[in-house]
Amino acid sequence: MSIVKEQLAARIETHINALSKFTATPEQGTTRLTYSQEDLQARNYIKEKMREVGLTVTEDGFGNIFGKLEGSLKDAPSVLIGSHFDSVPNGGSYDGPAGVVAGLEVAALFAENKIKPKYPLEIIAMVEEEGSRFGGGLMGSRGITGLMSEEEFFQLADRDGVLAKDAMKKIGLDPSLPKQRDPKTIKSFLELHIEQGPILEEKGISIGMVEAIVGLTQLNVTINGQAGHAGTTPMDRRSDALAAAAAILAGLPELALAEGEGTVLTVGRLNVFPNGANVIPDNVIFSVDIRSGKEEHVLNVVNKVKKRIRSYDGGGIKTSVEQPLYMKPKAMNKEILSLLKEKSGRLDIPYCLINSGAGHDAMVLSDFTDVGMLFIPSRNGLSHCPEEWSDSKDIAKAVEIFYETAKKLTEAE
Amino acid sequence: MSIVKEQLAARIETHINALSKFTATPEQGTTRLTYSQEDLQARNYIKEKMREVGLTVTEDGFGNIFGKLEGSLKDAPSVLIGSHFDSVPNGGSYDGPAGVVAGLEVAALFAENKIKPKYPLEIIAMVEEEGSRFGGGLMGSRGITGLMSEEEFFQLADRDGVLAKDAMKKIGLDPSLPKQRDPKTIKSFLELHIEQGPILEEKGISIGMVEAIVGLTQLNVTINGQAGHAGTTPMDRRSDALAAAAAILAGLPELALAEGEGTVLTVGRLNVFPNGANVIPDNVIFSVDIRSGKEEHVLNVVNKVKKRIRSYDGGGIKTSVEQPLYMKPKAMNKEILSLLKEKSGRLDIPYCLINSGAGHDAMVLSDFTDVGMLFIPSRNGLSHCPEEWSDSKDIAKAVEIFYETAKKLTEAE
Repeated sequence: MSIVKEQLAARIETHINALSKFTATPEQGTTRLTYSQEDLQARNYIKEKMREVGLTVTEDGFGNIFGKLEGSLKDAPSVLIGSHFDSVPNGGSYDGPAGVVAGLEVAALFAENKIKPKYPLEIIAMVEEEGSRFGGGLMGSRGITGLMSEEEFFQLADRDGVLAKDAMKKIGLDPSLPKQRDPKTIKSFLELHIEQGPILEEKGISIGMVEAIVGLTQLNVTINGQAGHAGTTPMDRRSDALAAAAAILAGLPELALAEGEGTVLTVGRLNVFPNGANVIPDNVIFSVDIRSGKEEHVLNVVNKVKKRIRSYDGGGIKTSVEQPLYMKPKAMNKEILSLLKEKSGRLDIPYCLINSGAGHDAMVLSDFTDVGMLFIPSRNGLSHCPEEWSDSKDIAKAVEIFYETAKKLTEAE
Repeated sequence: MSIVKEQLAARIETHINALSKFTATPEQGTTRLTYSQEDLQARNYIKEKMREVGLTVTEDGFGNIFGKLEGSLKDAPSVLIGSHFDSVPNGGSYDGPAGVVAGLEVAALFAENKIKPKYPLEIIAMVEEEGSRFGGGLMGSRGITGLMSEEEFFQLADRDGVLAKDAMKKIGLDPSLPKQRDPKTIKSFLELHIEQGPILEEKGISIGMVEAIVGLTQLNVTINGQAGHAGTTPMDRRSDALAAAAAILAGLPELALAEGEGTVLTVGRLNVFPNGANVIPDNVIFSVDIRSGKEEHVLNVVNKVKKRIRSYDGGGIKTSVEQPLYMKPKAMNKEILSLLKEKSGRLDIPYCLINSGAGHDAMVLSDFTDVGMLFIPSRNGLSHCPEEWSDSKDIAKAVEIFYETAKKLTEAE
C-alpha cells in the first residue's frame, strides 16, 4: 500500500473514531438518535470537516446536511455522495458514518488535487435512516425525494410524544427550511455502506458492487386460540395458539430455501399471550420478513406463507395476516455500475457483484436519480451492535473508486 | 330438588357472592392476594360465619383459619374440611372459596342437626394456594405440613420486597403463632374444588371423585443461536434460535398424545430475544409443562422431550434444559374414596372418577393424612378468569356427600 493510500485510510479512521465518540452510550456502542445532543455533536463535526475541504454547508428542513463544491456550469445538477449519520440504539461506528466519511474524503481529494468540476459535487449526511427515534426509517432520503411531506413531518413524534420539529429546534435546527428537493438539482447519487452480512468477508474481497437492493415485505401474523389450564384441558380439546404457530413456523425457512437465489425469510419477533407456564396460549403474534433481489421470489414466498398460515385455520384456531410493508427490489443504475466497475479495474481493486439485503437511502433515491452503491466487508458479518467493524483500508479503496467516478460524473476530467 | 336442598344451594350462593365482593379489581374478577385488605375482609367474613355455626376460631402463624367443633373424645385428631381463599389476579369467585364454603355448610348441617361427633370437625380456610403474591403456591398447606419452615417463611417477600410476616402484621395477624401442625392432630382432610376443566360439564355429571392428582414437571428450555440481520444473512448461514425452537415445539404435542391416558404437555411461556422484526433471534426461552396421573407417563414424556431438544444441538444452535419442578402423582386415600362413593350412592347423586390436572392443597396434605377430594363442573371448563362459574346446586350436592362422610369419619353416627 502506498503512503498516500495509508494516509487516506488513517484519515478515514480518525473521522470514524471522532464520530464514534458522539454516543449516548459510551463503552456500549453508538447510540446517536436523530436531533439528540449526540446528533448535534456529530453534525458540528461533519459541517466543520466539510468547510475544511472547501465545501459550502447548508441544512434543509429535516436537518439533512449538504456540503457543496460548485461546478463551472450554472444551475447544473449535483453529483451527491454520502449516507446517514444516525444510529440504532447500541449500534456500531460504521453503519452510516462510513458513507459520510467516504464522501468527505472524496471532497478532500477534489480539494487537494484542485479538481474543478463542471457539475457540482455535494457531500450529503442524512438524518434518521434507522428510524430509531421516529420510526419508519429512511426519513432523510424520503424527505428529500418528497415521499415524506412537510405536513407528515410536522405531526411526527417520538415515543415520548416529542414532536420532531420541536426536537429539531432544541438543537438549533430550523424545521421551516425547504424540504423536498427539485429532482432537477440532482444528477446522481453514490453511497458507500458496510455490507452488514458475511459474504464479502468470506470471499476475501474488499468491494461489493451493489446490483440491486432486495425487495422486502413484512407480514404481521396473528394466531388466536382458546386459553385453558395446562393441567386440566385434555390434549384433544385444545386450541393452542402457540402449538399452531410453532407448526406454521417450522415450515417457513424451507419456503425461502426452496425459492433460492438468495431469498431470505425471518421470523424475528414473536409474542405469546398470556405467556404463563401453566396456561395454554390463546394468542400469538409474529412477524415474517421476506426479502429477495427478484420481486417474483418475494411474491411467491408471500403467497406460500399465507397459504400455509390459512391451512391452520379451524378447530378453534383463527389466523389473520396483515402486510404493513411492501417494497419492490430496486436495481442500481446500470451506467453508474459500469463506471464503478471500469474505475475499479483501472485502480486494480478487485470487486464482486452483490445484492443488498437491507434497505438504504440509495434505495429511496433510486426512484429519483441515477444511483450507484458500494459495499465493504463487515467483520463476522455483524452490524447494529457495538462489535460492528470494517477496515478503513477498505473504505479508502471505495473512496478511490468514488473519487474517479465522481470526477467522471461531474465532468471534471 | 327439595326445599331443603334449594335452601342449601341458596345459602352457598350467598356466601360465594359475599366473598366475591372482597376483590381489589371490582367488575374485573376476583383479585384477593394473601394478607391484602381483601384477604382481611374475606377472613373476617369466614371467621364470623364459622362462629355463627358454633365453631371455635383460631389462626396459625401463616394466617390459615381453623373453625373447630370439639368431639367427645379427648385430644382426638380432627376431620378437616376446606380449601383456600386467596385468588389469582383477575380470577374467579369459585377457585378456593367453593371449598371453604362447602366446609362452612357441612359445619352448619352439623349445628342444625345437633350432631355430636366423637372426633373434632375442623373447617379450614388456607392462605396463598395460588402463589400469586409470594410465589411457589400451596403455601398454607405446605406450612401446616412443615414443608415450609418458619425460617423460610420469615424470609419470604413479595415482588415489592414486602416481607410476608410484615404483610401479616399489617392486617392484624400474628406471625409468631405456631405454624407446623402435629400430624397426630389430623385424622383426615376433605376438599371440594372446581374442576377447572371441561370433563364434568361435557359428561353432564355434577360430582367428580378425584382418584389422583396428576404428577407434574416443568422444564425451562433455552435455545441459543446467532443473531444476524434479517436481510443480509443467507438462509444457509443462519443459526436461528426461533426457527430451531419452532421445529422442536412442532413435535411436542404429539409426544403427549402418543403417551395417552390423559397425559398433557403445554408450552405456555415463550420469549424471543432480541425480538425485532429484522433481526434473526439468538435466544429463545420456553417452558414445557408435562402432567399425567401416572408417573411413568411423566418420565417417558420428559425423556422424549429432552431427546428431541438435544437432537437440535449443533450447527450454531446450543440447547439446554433445566427441570425446576417435579412432583409425583398423588393418589387420594382409597378408603375415603370408597366412603365418598358409598355416600353418593345412598344420596342418589351420580358421580364419575376423575384425575385432577392441577395441584391442590389436598395434594400436599395427602402425604400427611388421609385425603378425599371432590370436583364440581366448571362452566366452559374455564377457571382463573372472571368468567369462572360453577353451579351452587353442584356445591350443595358435594356438601351433602361431605356431610354424610364427615359424620362417618368423626364417628358421629
